[in-house]
Amino acid sequence: MLRHDGRSNTQLRPVRILRNYIKHAEGSVLIEVGDTKVICTASVEERIPPFKKDSGEGWITAEYSMLPRATAVRNQRDISKLKLNGRSSEIQRLIGRSLRTIVDLKLLGERTITVDCDVIQADGGTRTASITGGYVALADACRTLVKNGLISKTPIIGIVAATSVGIVNGEELLDLCYIEDSNAEVDMNVIMTDKGEFIELQATGEKSSFSKKQLDKLLNLAESGIHELIKAQNEVIWKD
Amino acid sequence: MLRHDGRSNTQLRPVRILRNYIKHAEGSVLIEVGDTKVICTASVEERIPPFKKDSGEGWITAEYSMLPRATAVRNQRDISKLKLNGRSSEIQRLIGRSLRTIVDLKLLGERTITVDCDVIQADGGTRTASITGGYVALADACRTLVKNGLISKTPIIGIVAATSVGIVNGEELLDLCYIEDSNAEVDMNVIMTDKGEFIELQATGEKSSFSKKQLDKLLNLAESGIHELIKAQNEVIWKD
Amino acid sequence: MLRHDGRSNTQLRPVRILRNYIKHAEGSVLIEVGDTKVICTASVEERIPPFKKDSGEGWITAEYSMLPRATAVRNQRDISKLKLNGRSSEIQRLIGRSLRTIVDLKLLGERTITVDCDVIQADGGTRTASITGGYVALADACRTLVKNGLISKTPIIGIVAATSVGIVNGEELLDLCYIEDSNAEVDMNVIMTDKGEFIELQATGEKSSFSKKQLDKLLNLAESGIHELIKAQNEVIWKD
Amino acid sequence: MLRHDGRSNTQLRPVRILRNYIKHAEGSVLIEVGDTKVICTASVEERIPPFKKDSGEGWITAEYSMLPRATAVRNQRDISKLKLNGRSSEIQRLIGRSLRTIVDLKLLGERTITVDCDVIQADGGTRTASITGGYVALADACRTLVKNGLISKTPIIGIVAATSVGIVNGEELLDLCYIEDSNAEVDMNVIMTDKGEFIELQATGEKSSFSKKQLDKLLNLAESGIHELIKAQNEVIWKD
Amino acid sequence: MLRHDGRSNTQLRPVRILRNYIKHAEGSVLIEVGDTKVICTASVEERIPPFKKDSGEGWITAEYSMLPRATAVRNQRDISKLKLNGRSSEIQRLIGRSLRTIVDLKLLGERTITVDCDVIQADGGTRTASITGGYVALADACRTLVKNGLISKTPIIGIVAATSVGIVNGEELLDLCYIEDSNAEVDMNVIMTDKGEFIELQATGEKSSFSKKQLDKLLNLAESGIHELIKAQNEVIWKD
Amino acid sequence: MLRHDGRSNTQLRPVRILRNYIKHAEGSVLIEVGDTKVICTASVEERIPPFKKDSGEGWITAEYSMLPRATAVRNQRDISKLKLNGRSSEIQRLIGRSLRTIVDLKLLGERTITVDCDVIQADGGTRTASITGGYVALADACRTLVKNGLISKTPIIGIVAATSVGIVNGEELLDLCYIEDSNAEVDMNVIMTDKGEFIELQATGEKSSFSKKQLDKLLNLAESGIHELIKAQNEVIWKD
Repeated sequence: MLRHDGRSNTQLRPVRILRNYIKHAEGSVLIEVGDTKVICTASVEERIPPFKKDSGEGWITAEYSMLPRATAVRNQRDISKLKLNGRSSEIQRLIGRSLRTIVDLKLLGERTITVDCDVIQADGGTRTASITGGYVALADACRTLVKNGLISKTPIIGIVAATSVGIVNGEELLDLCYIEDSNAEVDMNVIMTDKGEFIELQATGEKSSFSKKQLDKLLNLAESGIHELIKAQNEVIWKD
Repeated sequence: MLRHDGRSNTQLRPVRILRNYIKHAEGSVLIEVGDTKVICTASVEERIPPFKKDSGEGWITAEYSMLPRATAVRNQRDISKLKLNGRSSEIQRLIGRSLRTIVDLKLLGERTITVDCDVIQADGGTRTASITGGYVALADACRTLVKNGLISKTPIIGIVAATSVGIVNGEELLDLCYIEDSNAEVDMNVIMTDKGEFIELQATGEKSSFSKKQLDKLLNLAESGIHELIKAQNEVIWKD
Repeated sequence: MLRHDGRSNTQLRPVRILRNYIKHAEGSVLIEVGDTKVICTASVEERIPPFKKDSGEGWITAEYSMLPRATAVRNQRDISKLKLNGRSSEIQRLIGRSLRTIVDLKLLGERTITVDCDVIQADGGTRTASITGGYVALADACRTLVKNGLISKTPIIGIVAATSVGIVNGEELLDLCYIEDSNAEVDMNVIMTDKGEFIELQATGEKSSFSKKQLDKLLNLAESGIHELIKAQNEVIWKD
Repeated sequence: MLRHDGRSNTQLRPVRILRNYIKHAEGSVLIEVGDTKVICTASVEERIPPFKKDSGEGWITAEYSMLPRATAVRNQRDISKLKLNGRSSEIQRLIGRSLRTIVDLKLLGERTITVDCDVIQADGGTRTASITGGYVALADACRTLVKNGLISKTPIIGIVAATSVGIVNGEELLDLCYIEDSNAEVDMNVIMTDKGEFIELQATGEKSSFSKKQLDKLLNLAESGIHELIKAQNEVIWKD
Repeated sequence: MLRHDGRSNTQLRPVRILRNYIKHAEGSVLIEVGDTKVICTASVEERIPPFKKDSGEGWITAEYSMLPRATAVRNQRDISKLKLNGRSSEIQRLIGRSLRTIVDLKLLGERTITVDCDVIQADGGTRTASITGGYVALADACRTLVKNGLISKTPIIGIVAATSVGIVNGEELLDLCYIEDSNAEVDMNVIMTDKGEFIELQATGEKSSFSKKQLDKLLNLAESGIHELIKAQNEVIWKD
Repeated sequence: MLRHDGRSNTQLRPVRILRNYIKHAEGSVLIEVGDTKVICTASVEERIPPFKKDSGEGWITAEYSMLPRATAVRNQRDISKLKLNGRSSEIQRLIGRSLRTIVDLKLLGERTITVDCDVIQADGGTRTASITGGYVALADACRTLVKNGLISKTPIIGIVAATSVGIVNGEELLDLCYIEDSNAEVDMNVIMTDKGEFIELQATGEKSSFSKKQLDKLLNLAESGIHELIKAQNEVIWKD
């Protein structure tokens, strides 16, 4: 039985990564995973946060936001409510942690790269698309630093990509779109490296608890998806 | 003598209006005016602001924002500073006023259309591009309302478009890009209808005052540009 | 046909400018234009904003606010809503730009003058009264700087005043009071120098669009009004 | 030995209460106590706060603020810092409590009167001037309610006035101006009724503790001052 | 080799759950896990959030905060920065999700229970202690509802507890204290039911990525710890 | 006639001061006055506020807050409303002033001690309990400074304690619990030193005005209570 968009349970949605999408940024991509579309820009600034002072190291941080009409119903902007959305806050911390693990902060030197992930159209999996796309923008920003002679070699020391998996109507599915996500019994975001190791995983029993066995099946499914995503990243990243 | 991008003084930058850009919105466009790119979505909500209560009329409002890296240097998000940028506040009031003038609020009925203008790449003229693009998104949202049987005929009663003109090094120029805008002695935003009448004009002597004669020249220049922009709007808007 | 307060269409309301109104400020006036009353203070601070660092120049900025009961209906204070009123934000940017054009920032030296315009009673034209009165407060603050030996000559290099004009029931009127303003088809704020040149103009078709011909009539009307306002400024400013 | 403005220790500064100062408000005064000047407006609104719902009673509340340049050094506006000044918060609670004690909230009916006290020039004693002046504005607002037939008799059931007293260089002084206040060892604000009873008193040992004996002297001093202030209130309040 | 507080790698810290700790709350506990101390109160309110309107269901939500000096270095309060701490935001969303899974919202009826988790002393594992303790407070609040006749049977349909596990210097450890947590290569929070199923798990490679094998070991360790924690909950919860 | 908890009119509630309550703080106590429970921590930081720059002096400041369910009805957190509670603001200013009077800021040196008073259970008199308990935490923090060799002798130069008194049903009562406080005609907070002198007193006629005679009775009552509180402080403070 196929999924409502015709995919098999173990199939990713079409992935498209457009590099150099915003001309001002040191690195930038438009990533599309099915109907989910995120603009990721990586901005280099020659300053470090206070807690990194005198460390000789740089910092990677991320911000995540949605345009008001990225979703079926318009959302008020954070500034109208004077509150950073709790969900955004959680997601941008996840993106920042994930991207930091594949950067040698010593090699980066005393500068900050901010990866802004702005969802312009949402259809599930915006946080994992942000990580997958944000990685490419970040790698490009590092390349710009090398090209401009600011550092001698890239501080990128690995590849990271992410996808969601979940259990919907008792079946394990890869790469949930919005309608699947909202009906999932269990929902998991998996962030992995090109070595097949985990960087972060977050599994939530939205409607029910889940067993070790189910967890294992989901992890396998995620691994296969991330393998493909890393292939997609590699294809675009070595293009110039 | 040509301008630094090869245009003549009386020439607009290439304009591209992509309709139906965001699948969730009742109306949406990506407008590109040279390197300036703005996503405009028009969202219909079945409620009206308190000051319109019992008026039998609807309301049109606008919000304007830039992605952090739409500009050469990254800007902090409003929510990080807990303050709506003063410039954004001024611009979104302008967009809202301009679009309201070409809508019959009685015909719209007791609903609100919010036009969100999110600049994803900025190179001068973002507020005028927002009005020109926002008009198309708004017209499409009204068409959606008619198509869905919510209103019997469109409340759109005119066409509105906008451009900037200015005096740079003593010469009157049409459609300033960022580098021209930052060197302008005088800078003017003009919003006009398809009947050749003004809806709003804002002229500022950034570096010097200006005479009535200079004002007249600028107004003529703006009129010719807006004429072309309305042609561009008409071309895409009647496509389906 | 006379206006509801008995004025002719081309007549200003009575203008009264009281200097040295607040004893603490380097410059201060109470300006009354009809029933509109604004306290303008100009405060000198020996610091400059970050973007002026190492420029050798000073800065002029403005803030605009209304007391809660300056209007017919009490308005909540900005701090109660934690948001700077969008209208105030737009107006204070306008006042700041207008006053900066008649100051030589190099001569001012590395200091900031903040012109606070606090409306204690509103009856239309508060932003233009703020500019007209703010100019006198600013000039007085510069004089205080000279008197105290901080600068050798005043950095004021021109005179600026402002008024509103509009079309009400098809007639062009000078200096709209609140009731006229709320019924205006077209509303324009004009800021001019003593040389008869424009510093800024903002014209808005509140209820309808307007033609070039109407614009020209309004500009003439504004010019005559501003001429008178500059006479009023000059009368008080040379008094000591 | 006289005080630096020539007053004796037991002498108030000149008091001036100007009624009907702001044309829009139901009650309004400009009160001047020496160089301290406060605009007090009393605004009636036909609504009550949630905690008074179904009580059949009205409510009296107060807000207190200073214009930025009411003081020797310019203060940032609360909205710039997004925080209500702690001192303002404390003072407006005091004003509200004091004024509520002389109003029969049942007689007022289900409406709210907000007394806004905006200090336009500060020279010590701004909170007590706000109470003394606020009382007159409040009484006038109640009279307006009676005049307009909204209530049959005024809900004002007493008179309240306030002054500060303190110990400066070991001497008990009435009605401290700013320079005295900043050098005071002990500082006390006293709010009393026309019956000679206390409504509130706040005594603070700013630089040292104080004895019961000193407290008693200060209370006597305050009583004599408040007696005079109530005379000043009575003089203006029965004028029409 | 023992851990620095003498525990073996598979040993929990001493757990103490004090019920009825705050007299006003419908349910409340002080939970101590080693030196980590959290006050959990469960407050019943007879209202539901807007998104639950007309659902016939209730809602469970959580808030998490630390006293300023719960940590080695004093933290500024959120209100001083006007921003909810990003970490708190993430944690309170986790607590809310976890507790909701063991409540039948239909049985709860149209009311909200807010579980406030206020850390008074922090030494690692504050979020998992909040869940373990919050469960007891929540169960007690439900019992209060039954006792007061508001619902006929408790809506609690399972038991939930949580602990952290991690890899420190290459060894898998149960229940990390702060010093272990800050040195962990991998850090995982596990939330489980009394049936041995997962409700949520969050694993983070803080300093390195981790393998499926390491994940499995950590999950086993967590399961044994949670088993004990549920025993501790059961011991106190059936005491009256 | 006894009070509802069996006390005589002149009797304090049981007082319990637990020192070293929070392990991280330089000084910390849990103070219980009847059912009112406050955690007071004193945190030393090696920095001073801007207005103390180059003074050679230190600073003492206080913050006051309630846990959401410290009261009979749950209160929203300040951060949810983005506003510091007006009452908290007033109280923390009082605590700070009171504690500063018994510290020699020169002896303290250029450092700040912040006394955080967090009410975990409220039953009247939370501000006075905060001062009485805060004093002990502050004294302990100073002792820590001496023990660590940062200063040679304690900057504490006196003892301060506080209680509330009031008139309830015409009778003067010492140490009001919540139910008495909410029914009080007059309510007074008194802060005194071990020398029997006042540091601050705040008397409020909540329901009626009060006479000099009543004030005197209340002051006597307060003095006797504070005498006992200082005894309780002395008992615990000399214990190690």
